[in-house]
Order: sequence, then structure tokens, then C-alpha cells
Amino acid sequence: MSEAVIKNEEVDIVIGALQPDLTSFMEAWRPVFSQFHLIIVQDPDLKDDVKIPEGFNLTLYKKSDIEKVAGSTSSISFSGFSCRYFGYLMSKKKYIISIDDDCVPAKDPNGYPIDAVAQHLTNLSTPATPFFFNTLYDPFCDGSDFVRGYPFSLRTGVECALSCGLWLNLADYDAPTQVLKPDQKNSRYVDAVLTVPARTMLPVSGINVGFNNELIGPALVPAFRLAKEGNLRWETMEDIWTGMCVKVVSDHLRLGVKSGLPYVWRKERGSAVASLKKEWEGVRVMEDVVPFFQSIRLSETAATAEDCVSEIAVLVKGRLGAENEMFGRAADAMAEWIKLWKQVRSL
Amino acid sequence: MSEAVIKNEEVDIVIGALQPDLTSFMEAWRPVFSQFHLIIVQDPDLKDDVKIPEGFNLTLYKKSDIEKVAGSTSSISFSGFSCRYFGYLMSKKKYIISIDDDCVPAKDPNGYPIDAVAQHLTNLSTPATPFFFNTLYDPFCDGSDFVRGYPFSLRTGVECALSCGLWLNLADYDAPTQVLKPDQKNSRYVDAVLTVPARTMLPVSGINVGFNNELIGPALVPAFRLAKEGNLRWETMEDIWTGMCVKVVSDHLRLGVKSGLPYVWRKERGSAVASLKKEWEGVRVMEDVVPFFQSIRLSETAATAEDCVSEIAVLVKGRLGAENEMFGRAADAMAEWIKLWKQVRSL
Repeated sequence: MSEAVIKNEEVDIVIGALQPDLTSFMEAWRPVFSQFHLIIVQDPDLKDDVKIPEGFNLTLYKKSDIEKVAGSTSSISFSGFSCRYFGYLMSKKKYIISIDDDCVPAKDPNGYPIDAVAQHLTNLSTPATPFFFNTLYDPFCDGSDFVRGYPFSLRTGVECALSCGLWLNLADYDAPTQVLKPDQKNSRYVDAVLTVPARTMLPVSGINVGFNNELIGPALVPAFRLAKEGNLRWETMEDIWTGMCVKVVSDHLRLGVKSGLPYVWRKERGSAVASLKKEWEGVRVMEDVVPFFQSIRLSETAATAEDCVSEIAVLVKGRLGAENEMFGRAADAMAEWIKLWKQVRSL
Repeated sequence: MSEAVIKNEEVDIVIGALQPDLTSFMEAWRPVFSQFHLIIVQDPDLKDDVKIPEGFNLTLYKKSDIEKVAGSTSSISFSGFSCRYFGYLMSKKKYIISIDDDCVPAKDPNGYPIDAVAQHLTNLSTPATPFFFNTLYDPFCDGSDFVRGYPFSLRTGVECALSCGLWLNLADYDAPTQVLKPDQKNSRYVDAVLTVPARTMLPVSGINVGFNNELIGPALVPAFRLAKEGNLRWETMEDIWTGMCVKVVSDHLRLGVKSGLPYVWRKERGSAVASLKKEWEGVRVMEDVVPFFQSIRLSETAATAEDCVSEIAVLVKGRLGAENEMFGRAADAMAEWIKLWKQVRSL
């Protein structure tokens, strides 16, 4: 594939508002966000209207909007982190960037603020190379290339479906790790983007991501919800489940997933110790979830992301459903999400 | 697995001497190399004795030594880059580090010289994690850990068999890429080590590597030789072939391969344009070599690196032998290497 040029009009920045006042978040991102259309989805559990500063081109969705569109669905919940999925559902744009509302722009090692959106768009507009590993990382970065031995037939690469950014300061550890190493902050700036190889699963974090909504949008599905889900990242596994779903679909459709740059700066919130009980459930289920996703092979007839997610939903129900009712609910939510996705797009 | 502590006595540094005077190379590395036993293997094509400065603890092997040990083998050639494999064969140590003789210590972004040997030994003594991708790279680096969602059952990891370092200044491109971008130097210092996922093939470069000779030594095999092999890196594919062999064996034996730090500084030599004809053959064969290695599944009875290499040799002969006589010769060399390996170790 050739490198695409992405116009700003092709991009929605989707923010799930979990805190009642977005002022400091939005001001920190103003130079970047003001160039794009924003979709802000207010967590339906928030009682009051979210406070948003002036001067942005945005669409705000609230509980009433969610109920109007998705009121009839019983399996899908858009509360907490999952509120952003309503923005993905409603977006008409080709590309979506989504950043947690407790993150501000990070600085590169030279002290310059990092434009995370620009880096995600670079990642999405340059090819991914999932079928052979390039030791010098992303060959499409400036000043890099394919190393000796890289087959020429694989150098054109494939389209990049998902760009997973990283985090400085507060890293995305689970609660047990946070409790064990309370002072451990991520200060290592790794100046690289790489394609995660085909058939390799990774824990995608929803903190700081960009994706091609046309190619893979339906696979970003608000399906997996812990019984004691909280509104701190380490109290949820929704994004981890979704990420494995996206990876399986991308592998099947011969699309790429990249990980690495851009970084955002994550601010502290919450108490790891208090979260430990909630998270422990999430940690435990990964022992079943990861082998399940690693084993999935989709049928040749699954030609779109919608097809793939529907097929995965059936597999979840059949293979995991009996183990824990969480999985049965996730399967139902996936099936219902695909219906909703098609319905919104048929209007 | 737990982290090992490697003693200096467990390490051989193996240098293939392709140039007649190692003085500047050895002086550049003196603070590092003087702590270890060195094995220097003189390229048998060199006419005069190689010049080596005083003050190192070393064993030097020359053409006559090679003939004494391996004189009866007809398929294996130890000339050019392959001379270092004679050092691997003769080493009695658990760990081997090997660095090309046109490389000197690189500097980190703070200007401090990088101790490449120490970093390789760190990579080899800490676990590898080939069964799930960690987005914050090597979780065993200082200040890093496993991210949220990483299954706890996979966090112990497996032993690391091979550590592949990288190169600043002259990157390891093939001749066509060098010719197209003559001014492109690698200046990007990526502060990361990562485990290359299981079942993902990579182009291992022999420029700057460390490995566990006990676990994987027999898989570093001087087998693949282009008809017009030269003594510039971009005129050989021996290391690329060997690397895929090591990766297949490591995947089968549930061992890990890491890539990333340490960097070395590669100095210029040779003309890419003059090499283009030789290299072109190497570039072309990768179109067959990569799918071949990607498709290999070894039998359950293959329990050691020797077993695995013998099995791969049979597959090479059967599946690739008819296409190009280079492959038939490589298969013969692999079979003969395993015989030689066992013979030397039985003495």
C-alpha cells in the first residue's frame, strides 16, 4: 500500500468525560484539539453537566442521547470508560483518536510537547508490517528502513488499523503491580513505533489510541465488563478485551496494529490499594481470555469487521460462556453492538 | 524462571578477524574485552597473521587449527564471516558474545560509552516473554514491568537464548537500500529491549549478538553461503539464515529471542554499488527462505538444539533443495555441523 494523506476533516477526537470538569484537560490539549472536530461523551453516571471550555468544534453526547439511540439494547452499557464507545458508534469520520481525560501532552526528551494526534495519524497513514519483524522498528519512520534480509515482497506492508500509544509518568499497570511498586513511574521514553506481529496478542490499553474506524470500528466493542467495574483504568478490562478482539480481526483481515509512540502524560488518580479487590477479578480472567483469543481462527467467509465480531461473539458464548457469566454477557453485548452499528449506519 | 547471575568466567567473546590489523578495534573495546576470555578466529583467507595488541586473555585460531579440527568436513566453509563459527564450535563457555571487527562502542544519548557485553549478558540472564506482547517492552528492565492485562501465568517467562543488538551510524541495510539512500545513517537510539514473539521470524544480524551456547549453540550454524559471497555484511546472508534457524529452534524449545539494546557503532567500509550484484542474489532467495522457515513445525521428539537442526536440515533438503543448489549445500553443511559439534564435545 502507499502512504495516505489524512485531512483533519477525516478525523474525530473522541473523549469519554468521566470527570465533571474537563477544563484543565481541554486547555492542555487546546493547540492540538482545536484543529479537529471533537466528540465528547459524558459518562451517563455523571450527575451534572460536564464543564467544557469555549472555543472547540464539538458534539456533546449525554445520557439522553445514548438512550435515544441505544435505549432498546439491554446488553450494552455505556457507563464509565465505555461511554466513549458511543462516540465511536456515532462518528462519521474515517479516523478516530481517543485519549483518557486524565492525560495531558507529554514532552519528548528534548522538552518539546508531543502532538499525540499527529503521531497517531502518521502511524495510521503509513503501512504496517505484521508478517516479518523489522529489527530497526517501523521502517516508515523518517531515517529508518527495512534491514538486510527483509523480503522485498513484504515491504509494501498492509494498512494500519490501530495505533496504540503509550504513557509516561503513571504507567498502565494493574492494581497488584501498583500496590507492590507504588513509587514506580514510567520515565523511559522509547523512540519507536513497531508493528505487533501477526498472531501475537497484546494488552491494548484504551488510554491513548487511534484507529481506522472504517476498517476496524465495529471491533472496538464495549463488551467486557467486570462485576465490580470501577472508573479507574486499573479497575476495568474493557479495553484489554476489545484490543484482543481488534487484533484477531486485524490478523484475519490482513491489517496491522502498531504500538509505541506517541506518549501521553498520565496524572495520578485513585488508590491502588482500594482497587485491589476489583482488579483481582480482572487479573484472574485473563488466564482464560488470552488463550481463548490466541486460539481463534475465523472462517474465510468473514470478510468485514462486522462479520468477524459476530463470529467471535458466537465463539465466546460457546467456549467461555459456561465458565463465568461475564463471558456470556460479553458475547451478547458483541452481537447487539453489531446490530446497533449497522442500524446507526443505515439511517 | 529466575534471573541468573553470569560470571565473567562463563563468557567467551568471539571475534572473527576479517581485517589484518585488529589494533584499533581491540583498543576501542579494551575496557570491556579485557575482563573476558577472547577467542579470535582469523579468516582463513587472510594471508598474513592478524595483528593483535598485547594485554588480552585470548585464544587465537588460524587456518591450520581449523583444518586440524574440521579438515575432514567438505560442506562447511569457515572463510569470511563464517570464521567466527569455528570459535563458537571450540568455546567451552556457557555464553558467547560476538561483535564484527568494524564496530566500536557506541555512545548512549547522554554521551556515555555503551558496554555492549554487559547489556547482552543482562538480556541473556533475564527471562524472555515470547507468548504475549508487553507494550512497555522488556518487563525485566529497571523501571519497567508487565502492563495491565498481561496474564500472570506468563510473567515468569522463559530462558533467553539469543540477544540481538543493533547498530548506530551504518545501519544493516542490504546493498540496494544502501545504493538508493547512500546518506541514510541510523541515528535513532531506541532505548528498549523486546522479546520477539513466538512464531515471528526476524532477520537476525550477526554484527552484534550474544547467545547461550549451551542452549542454542548448535543452531548457530555456518550453513548458508551465496555463490558470490563477499566479506562485507551486505554481501552475505549467512547470519540471516542462521538467525531463522535459531528462531525456529527457540520457538520449538520454548526459549526466547530478544532484540534491541545494546547498540554498537558501525564504521563505513566497502562500496554498496560494487556489492549490488552479489547482494541481489541474497535478496532474491529470501522470498523462498522466509516462507520456508515460517512454515516449519518440528516434531515432538526433537528435544535439543542438535535434534532440531538435524531435522531442519532434512526439511531444507526436501523442500528447498531442488530449487537452488545453494539450499542443498546448506542442508549438507547443517548435517555436517551437528556431527562436528558432537565430535568436538566428545573429546
